[in-house]
Amino acid sequence: MAATLTTLPRHDGFRLPGEFETKAGCWLGWPERTDVWRNGAKPAQQVWVDIVSAIAQSEPVTVCASASQYQNARARLPVHVRVLEMTLNDSWFRDTGPAWLINDTSGEVRGVQFRFNAYGGFDGGIYFPWDKDEQIAQKILEAERAARYRCPLIAEMGGIQSDGQGTLLTTEQCLLNRNRNGHLGKEQVTELLCDYLGAEQVIWLPRGCKFDETDGHIDDLACFVRPGVVVMQWSDDPSDPQYEIYQEAYAILSNARDARGRPLAVHKLPAPAPLVWREDEAAGLDHGDAALSRVAGTQICASYINYYVGNSVVVVPEFGDVNDDAAQRILAELFPQHRVIGIPNTREILLGGGNIACITSPQYAVSRR
Amino acid sequence: MAATLTTLPRHDGFRLPGEFETKAGCWLGWPERTDVWRNGAKPAQQVWVDIVSAIAQSEPVTVCASASQYQNARARLPVHVRVLEMTLNDSWFRDTGPAWLINDTSGEVRGVQFRFNAYGGFDGGIYFPWDKDEQIAQKILEAERAARYRCPLIAEMGGIQSDGQGTLLTTEQCLLNRNRNGHLGKEQVTELLCDYLGAEQVIWLPRGCKFDETDGHIDDLACFVRPGVVVMQWSDDPSDPQYEIYQEAYAILSNARDARGRPLAVHKLPAPAPLVWREDEAAGLDHGDAALSRVAGTQICASYINYYVGNSVVVVPEFGDVNDDAAQRILAELFPQHRVIGIPNTREILLGGGNIACITSPQYAVSRR
Repeated sequence: MAATLTTLPRHDGFRLPGEFETKAGCWLGWPERTDVWRNGAKPAQQVWVDIVSAIAQSEPVTVCASASQYQNARARLPVHVRVLEMTLNDSWFRDTGPAWLINDTSGEVRGVQFRFNAYGGFDGGIYFPWDKDEQIAQKILEAERAARYRCPLIAEMGGIQSDGQGTLLTTEQCLLNRNRNGHLGKEQVTELLCDYLGAEQVIWLPRGCKFDETDGHIDDLACFVRPGVVVMQWSDDPSDPQYEIYQEAYAILSNARDARGRPLAVHKLPAPAPLVWREDEAAGLDHGDAALSRVAGTQICASYINYYVGNSVVVVPEFGDVNDDAAQRILAELFPQHRVIGIPNTREILLGGGNIACITSPQYAVSRR
Repeated sequence: MAATLTTLPRHDGFRLPGEFETKAGCWLGWPERTDVWRNGAKPAQQVWVDIVSAIAQSEPVTVCASASQYQNARARLPVHVRVLEMTLNDSWFRDTGPAWLINDTSGEVRGVQFRFNAYGGFDGGIYFPWDKDEQIAQKILEAERAARYRCPLIAEMGGIQSDGQGTLLTTEQCLLNRNRNGHLGKEQVTELLCDYLGAEQVIWLPRGCKFDETDGHIDDLACFVRPGVVVMQWSDDPSDPQYEIYQEAYAILSNARDARGRPLAVHKLPAPAPLVWREDEAAGLDHGDAALSRVAGTQICASYINYYVGNSVVVVPEFGDVNDDAAQRILAELFPQHRVIGIPNTREILLGGGNIACITSPQYAVSRR
């Protein structure tokens, strides 16, 4: 039941669904550490509550909180959200949660646990230690009585997109980084990704967005809307610091073929204006050397691509930016069966280093059609 | 879903099943504290593994372990047992877990959370603090997405027996103790018990067994085998320190009528010989003042009554006593549909203050007949 398997998911008939596929639930960790989340984490916790409330309209949500924050999380979250105790180093469940795989024939659900080193370990990682976060995937799978595969790659699901039909999309900057799997080389990483996520092909982009503390996670730049369709962050302004990266990614995606030989339709979401840390925000952090130091003026990576797609809702970051509305309008067109919910003030999550996609781990289920 | 309700279970149509009724699972906590469990808790953990392995043949088992013991528990326990993280003061889940109630009409399952003060708080309690154990019932109900009632009584389920048909059995020594609910008085405690456990009548015994650190929990003295049938600990030896207590309890039970007006058939299990702490056992404990101090020569309350009855097994303590076999033979006759499994060396649990029943929290389910 909760066994640790030594076989390969692809050989066992399992695949990683696209994030637009059916979910049995969604998992989040509760933000707490006061050297990452300003003002005792209270502003971040409020945004978490807003996001959880939106997702809970679509599928069951479980929030994992430490023993000391358990009662606070329980009291602030909607009653129909489940709270489980879990010791955390931080709260990036997209990256520390498992990759949930499904077997379309048997209906079984299993999970993959990657190695996790807080985005680069001592070579550019953003917090230390990360020993508790390295156990989150296992603990979630245990809680759901799902069998576990352990993939030897150092990887985070925020860095990997799937079309659910054999194609993965990722960046060399992240997965081939010397602080992740540089010693393995592209061919071997490709093979491990395909073996463990039940895929046949990886589309590699050279890099993700600038100012992203994750070494270029794909989930700020581009993601699958459905098989054959990608949406990516975009700016027509050559002075935008990400301009060249967008051009590069667009060229590759427009010329790519997926695992089934299809070309990709590439849609564009306008980027929000560049953001930087304010003095008052930096003043709200505890000092120490256990987490990346953020000072006023530090540039922030913001992206509407970092949304969460549930069974019936798409939950989208808002920044108080002129493009908030346009991004939601485009996503509403791309997801005509979903209700788009904008979450105000997700800047509070950006200050910790991510956004809505980064903090949500979708638990897939075999669709009963 | 996981709401905290302010109504009364009895009014809502819920009842506490008898422990012989259908279970959806069983919950245990993993023993850890080295001032209660000798030799780094390793001997106790081995007995836990034996007990869990036996129960897991009958129903799904979840073991809750602290963050620091999580991987150790996971590695030692059978793979099909679920391990959840939970901060614990100690591991007496019968007493810290919820009382699971069922609604026979709707099929719904809910739980009651009592107040918990580690068996008497500063007036005879056995460890301090108990703040984490006071949250266990809530955390278990959350994990199962079950609604929760909060009963104002200070009580432990090890002190309460149910026949599932309106009758409860308990002791005045425990529930009316000034260190529990003495300020309320017998009438009010009776009313609260009936309201929260969906019962109509309480059979009160004056006291439980001697040397029981719980102030006379019923689960060392007598329990329901099925409606109208009780089994109790027994000795014909007038020099047995419990002799008078057995006589007293037998007289009351033999003359009692249950909530449906039936007399009770009272069966007897022979008691094991009295036990005391050995020098080498006491030497294996960490010193401190956070837990009751046990020294060589301390008397121990041992009882075969402290068994666990699952859907298909009865898991019974063994002490290496001449009566081990007789107790199992009698229980096999009382539970003809069950397989009786003796667990060697449960003395290791006794050293902490209880036995198999004390560490197991049965999660009831509506029987689908």
